[in-house]
Amino acid sequence: MLSQVRIVGAGLIGTSIALALTARGVSVELIDSNERAAALANDLAQGKKLDAPEIVVLAVPTEVIPLVIEPEFLLNPNSTFMDVGSIKTEPIVHIKNSSLPLSRFVPTHPMAGREVGGAHSARADLFTTRSWIITPTSECSAESEEIVRELIALVGASAVVLPAEEHDRAVAAISHLPQITSTLLAHSLESVPAEWLDLAGAGLRDTTRIAASDPKLWSEIIYSNRDQIVELVQGMHHELGELLENLESKTSIASFIEKGRFERSRIPGKHGGKAREYTYLPIVIDDKPGQLAAIFNECAAIAVNVEDLNIEHSPGQQSALITLALSSHDADSLSNHLSAIGWNVHPILK
Amino acid sequence: MLSQVRIVGAGLIGTSIALALTARGVSVELIDSNERAAALANDLAQGKKLDAPEIVVLAVPTEVIPLVIEPEFLLNPNSTFMDVGSIKTEPIVHIKNSSLPLSRFVPTHPMAGREVGGAHSARADLFTTRSWIITPTSECSAESEEIVRELIALVGASAVVLPAEEHDRAVAAISHLPQITSTLLAHSLESVPAEWLDLAGAGLRDTTRIAASDPKLWSEIIYSNRDQIVELVQGMHHELGELLENLESKTSIASFIEKGRFERSRIPGKHGGKAREYTYLPIVIDDKPGQLAAIFNECAAIAVNVEDLNIEHSPGQQSALITLALSSHDADSLSNHLSAIGWNVHPILK
Repeated sequence: MLSQVRIVGAGLIGTSIALALTARGVSVELIDSNERAAALANDLAQGKKLDAPEIVVLAVPTEVIPLVIEPEFLLNPNSTFMDVGSIKTEPIVHIKNSSLPLSRFVPTHPMAGREVGGAHSARADLFTTRSWIITPTSECSAESEEIVRELIALVGASAVVLPAEEHDRAVAAISHLPQITSTLLAHSLESVPAEWLDLAGAGLRDTTRIAASDPKLWSEIIYSNRDQIVELVQGMHHELGELLENLESKTSIASFIEKGRFERSRIPGKHGGKAREYTYLPIVIDDKPGQLAAIFNECAAIAVNVEDLNIEHSPGQQSALITLALSSHDADSLSNHLSAIGWNVHPILK
Repeated sequence: MLSQVRIVGAGLIGTSIALALTARGVSVELIDSNERAAALANDLAQGKKLDAPEIVVLAVPTEVIPLVIEPEFLLNPNSTFMDVGSIKTEPIVHIKNSSLPLSRFVPTHPMAGREVGGAHSARADLFTTRSWIITPTSECSAESEEIVRELIALVGASAVVLPAEEHDRAVAAISHLPQITSTLLAHSLESVPAEWLDLAGAGLRDTTRIAASDPKLWSEIIYSNRDQIVELVQGMHHELGELLENLESKTSIASFIEKGRFERSRIPGKHGGKAREYTYLPIVIDDKPGQLAAIFNECAAIAVNVEDLNIEHSPGQQSALITLALSSHDADSLSNHLSAIGWNVHPILK
């Protein structure tokens, strides 16, 4: 049973791990070169001086690992070490060049974060239901992997094993290229007057949201993973050139948008969720307490499982539109059942 | 005082206008060549047969205007007409070629939308706090412009006057280029396996959100405005080429991200519809039928109104995280109530 965890780095991730572990009865201690951050984090997470941590979490930027690994190994010669960085081949190289045996290092990457950093932004439930990638090397001991899996389960996440190289290719595609694309679009605003920006809708705002990310962090990430990224950027450059050649053809533009829509539909709807084929059932209800309960009672009565739910209110109106995401079979059953007992059910949307 | 509005086109925009006007006591009637869409829209917005609409809203794609304008003008010879399309030079040409006097046509473009279309996605508050551009021609009568301004104010939006040509240049930059960029990024997912997509975070999802938009609608828009768009796409193509040449320089990457961050910061923050002050209550539940019903029964029992709900599933886990959006008062009541009877309620998020 995991009982003591030492966390090096009192930022968003380190402090969130500490909060989650404390809530599960594990003792934690946070250290940071920024003493105020460490004090705040230990305060928040009830950190205390530990004598024998089973795990040392390196919750620092990857390039800082070489600066902390020797003193940490000296202090904690029997602990398992794990990192939490966004690139997974690089920390392995750092550990190979250190005194820490590779058998006791587990490279990891929690698929969770917030746009805001720091101990004060930490949340005990940051990792709840999220995937947490681990990329153990062949030298990694079964004991070290096991205790890291225990930590991941304790904070509410699900461990997913990937080879480090595959991880770095995956994040180039699903994380680093989106960052570059969002930044690229933001660049195009240079010549846009403020009066036009005042008219911008949610499309521009959402598409450029991550362009607001930390330049220091992201230049490290992109530079470190450039070997994986360059090919993806080349592909995008080529696609954009093709679009330019085809802007006089409405059919080509339609294919361009259609293909994007198809590929977009392959992204699962929620963090770490499975891609599921949902059928959508719209129901108009009175906007008052008790209506949703009544519908869910009908669902339970005929053993229908609601996968997701969207509620659209109209302020000033007495009705709301709820849309239930269901399996195709459940949607048929529920539609028939609710219609028969007088609910205002609309035709199923596939 | 505006009392009757006829809406041609029961899609997202037409139905949302209808919902908003109904809430303000204006009678509406929706018509659509798709009878199911019209039935749903009239059901949602309490539409009824009108005898003398002051305004006919052409809430159809711009290229459909020539097909509907003659019969609509014949039926409503005294009404003011307005359209809601994304390009503003083109509908003016269509009206010039029709029997409708240009004095009674007001070209408009509400700066609001959703990536999902159709009457079932409509929202009465879609336009609340948004800009609604009008591009009246010099022939436009003061009376027609005035009554259209009244409609815009009634649905909660702010009228902004622009020349049609300037409008088309502005939307190329703030709307059409973001669409192209989001689609382009979605294309890059073609070679990404489903297991990697399962790991995607909010960055990829947000940046590709509008790639899910309607291909038919968007190929019309981009094709119609290609003269304004081509230069912007050329600029982006050039920037991407420069980034490719500089991927070996961490300083260049940092400048690239930094510049994007600066331009992003120029976008005004709060256009996201009417700001609602929700409090969020996270609850971990068993992922099985009956759990949601049980929670909603407790909500009903203590008269708590759920404003919205998010469900996060985790692959391979038997639990799900649901987050209820509530008023601050209801969140406190429900949190205390559910905790007392043994539910796994997490601290409230403000």
